[in-house]
Amino acid sequence: MLQGKVLIAQGGGPTAVINQSLAGAVLEARKHAAVKHIYGALHGINGIVNEDFLDLGLETRRNLDAVANTPCSALGSTRDKPDVKYCKEIFKVLQAHEIGTFLYIGGNDSSEALRILGEEAKKADYGLKGIHVPKTIDNDLMVNDHTPGYPSAARFVASAFAGVDKDNAALPGVYVGVVMGRHAGFLTAAAALARNHKDDGPHLVYLPERDFSMESFVSDVKSVYERLGRCVIAVSEGIHDQSGALIVTKMAKQVEKDAHGNVQLSGTGALADLLCAAIKESSGIKRVRGDTFGYLQRSFLGCVSEVDRKEAREVGEKAIQFAHQGHATGSVTIHRVGDYAAEFRLSPLDAVAGKTKVMDDAMISKSANDVTKTFIEYARPLIGGGLPEISRLDAANRVEKILGK
Amino acid sequence: MLQGKVLIAQGGGPTAVINQSLAGAVLEARKHAAVKHIYGALHGINGIVNEDFLDLGLETRRNLDAVANTPCSALGSTRDKPDVKYCKEIFKVLQAHEIGTFLYIGGNDSSEALRILGEEAKKADYGLKGIHVPKTIDNDLMVNDHTPGYPSAARFVASAFAGVDKDNAALPGVYVGVVMGRHAGFLTAAAALARNHKDDGPHLVYLPERDFSMESFVSDVKSVYERLGRCVIAVSEGIHDQSGALIVTKMAKQVEKDAHGNVQLSGTGALADLLCAAIKESSGIKRVRGDTFGYLQRSFLGCVSEVDRKEAREVGEKAIQFAHQGHATGSVTIHRVGDYAAEFRLSPLDAVAGKTKVMDDAMISKSANDVTKTFIEYARPLIGGGLPEISRLDAANRVEKILGK
Repeated sequence: MLQGKVLIAQGGGPTAVINQSLAGAVLEARKHAAVKHIYGALHGINGIVNEDFLDLGLETRRNLDAVANTPCSALGSTRDKPDVKYCKEIFKVLQAHEIGTFLYIGGNDSSEALRILGEEAKKADYGLKGIHVPKTIDNDLMVNDHTPGYPSAARFVASAFAGVDKDNAALPGVYVGVVMGRHAGFLTAAAALARNHKDDGPHLVYLPERDFSMESFVSDVKSVYERLGRCVIAVSEGIHDQSGALIVTKMAKQVEKDAHGNVQLSGTGALADLLCAAIKESSGIKRVRGDTFGYLQRSFLGCVSEVDRKEAREVGEKAIQFAHQGHATGSVTIHRVGDYAAEFRLSPLDAVAGKTKVMDDAMISKSANDVTKTFIEYARPLIGGGLPEISRLDAANRVEKILGK
Repeated sequence: MLQGKVLIAQGGGPTAVINQSLAGAVLEARKHAAVKHIYGALHGINGIVNEDFLDLGLETRRNLDAVANTPCSALGSTRDKPDVKYCKEIFKVLQAHEIGTFLYIGGNDSSEALRILGEEAKKADYGLKGIHVPKTIDNDLMVNDHTPGYPSAARFVASAFAGVDKDNAALPGVYVGVVMGRHAGFLTAAAALARNHKDDGPHLVYLPERDFSMESFVSDVKSVYERLGRCVIAVSEGIHDQSGALIVTKMAKQVEKDAHGNVQLSGTGALADLLCAAIKESSGIKRVRGDTFGYLQRSFLGCVSEVDRKEAREVGEKAIQFAHQGHATGSVTIHRVGDYAAEFRLSPLDAVAGKTKVMDDAMISKSANDVTKTFIEYARPLIGGGLPEISRLDAANRVEKILGK
């Protein structure tokens, strides 16, 4: 039975629907009379150590609903990764505030933080219920069919490529769009959902699941350009060569790393500029443009998949339900049980924590520069409906030339 | 009376609603029994010279409506600017196909092309009706209160900043978002429409209407960062120093220019990276991120202001009506006649052609790093409704510290 104080925190990179999970957990916890308080820690586990708590039980229903619709962690986030010392600090605070249940909404790093915390709690004989609530636009959590945040980010990427492809058709040239995703290509692959007609872009898709060769890349681009007079390309920020070295580091003067040792990939246009320069230099094509989609992918207001919105709400509710059922630890996971239907389970934390799921081989074309139908069928139900019906003018209605030009 | 053949073309940078104008013109022209054919030229005036025409009269109503909802010039666009020789080539084709009315949907460059074409037509004693249909995300056409394409692009920029501001609040640091707009700051200024609460970002807005000083910029950023612990900045791609030199050229190795002599500003992340580096170097702030919004601003699928959608349709319809009323030349212009109501007039081509409107002084703060209420009141009705209600958690509900950390 759920009782005492519940604490909720949000970690890692924000998503468009991460506050749906927060609202879902808060509203579900409020149903239980034995729950004394529902606290929110500001900026993840950092807020626990600093005792920076908000009493979420005092939030009005209307404001909670508005917060749920607001992109990016309303409690604030953190990239902190706790070690044993950090965990001891956390315990002190949890004990002092008599917190019995802790929900951490986050990705791989956050679930790993929860796992370490759980181990330390056991050693310290502290009875903590710790439930991980999934979110990540990268879609790279093990066990899960997909993770909340991904469908909305995928909708953004698909909508972006649907647009830039038409832009590129109007003013032909080469266009490179760099998409987030360090190790997993799911988000970059979503660019392919923009295609309707056979020759729609993106014409090439490069994923971190495959080694990247600048030579093959330029040759692929030239080949598409010769065929169509234009070329739209989706590239993952995490592309690397055979040795595993990131392509972006090949030009970066100064490589910035975060607390997890990850190289900074977002917040810079370096990779797009590097790839555009390579195309210009070796192909002689003049109009070569590159965009880096950046933070808009995970935060853009109003670009939300309805499937994602509902599921993100549900994983928050489910986390509270699992805790109420007596589970001491675990990660809420999403499983596809129909076309399309999903159900939620509680999986062991160590099946998810600190691990990275990448795209199945069946989702990637043999040529390593596109996705397969398997991926399209996997991703299409996730991004939701309601996008405008779009089309092109009928090219068959050509007017006969008089001057024969 | 409208009769014979009508030709429509689209020029310059695409917008999210440019095909609404196309559909509006085609459907309005179809009402007139004396109109024999409605042609569309592929890739602007380039398609006239090459006799690349589609018969738009054969389009189904359903497909036209889908095309209208599709971002970016369905007929294709061009950056070509005709000289006398080019115009003579155009005449040959217009005469051969007996085209009496030409609608050119475009911005400053397109209206200037139409003006030159009109002069040459007069010299050649060719009875051509030439009507300019406005579009530009830059909002920089003279006479107009605003131009079709701007409201949707402004909605995109506002939605983007609403999101990245929450992202920046969750993971604090400095964020620089570079927005399109060579000479006019209207689109960059739209970032300010993202603000709800007093301390919401963007906290600083830099426009091409004011000289940019790197020193003041860094000092402004430091000051906001000290006050709020974070800083979100909107910067126009067209910012320049006192001498008029573009800031982006200060680092660019190779500057690319188009047929109009314009330096390439979009399709590269150079400016954002340059500004981020300047902030890091001189402030010591560690988390500094930059995005360049790029082509998504004018093409993103599904981000359309309903005001823009309707007005873009209307300017196309009005162009045909003005031609039918017997006007030989002119530019359809939008005038604000209420709060909010607009009407459409036909203005002399040379009042619009080749000129650039910039933001009123009253719209720019005296500090030169923000917009005023005048701008907000001007722009707010344009971007349309239907954005999600968003909010933040109530910071007053702080839980009392026990350990006093």
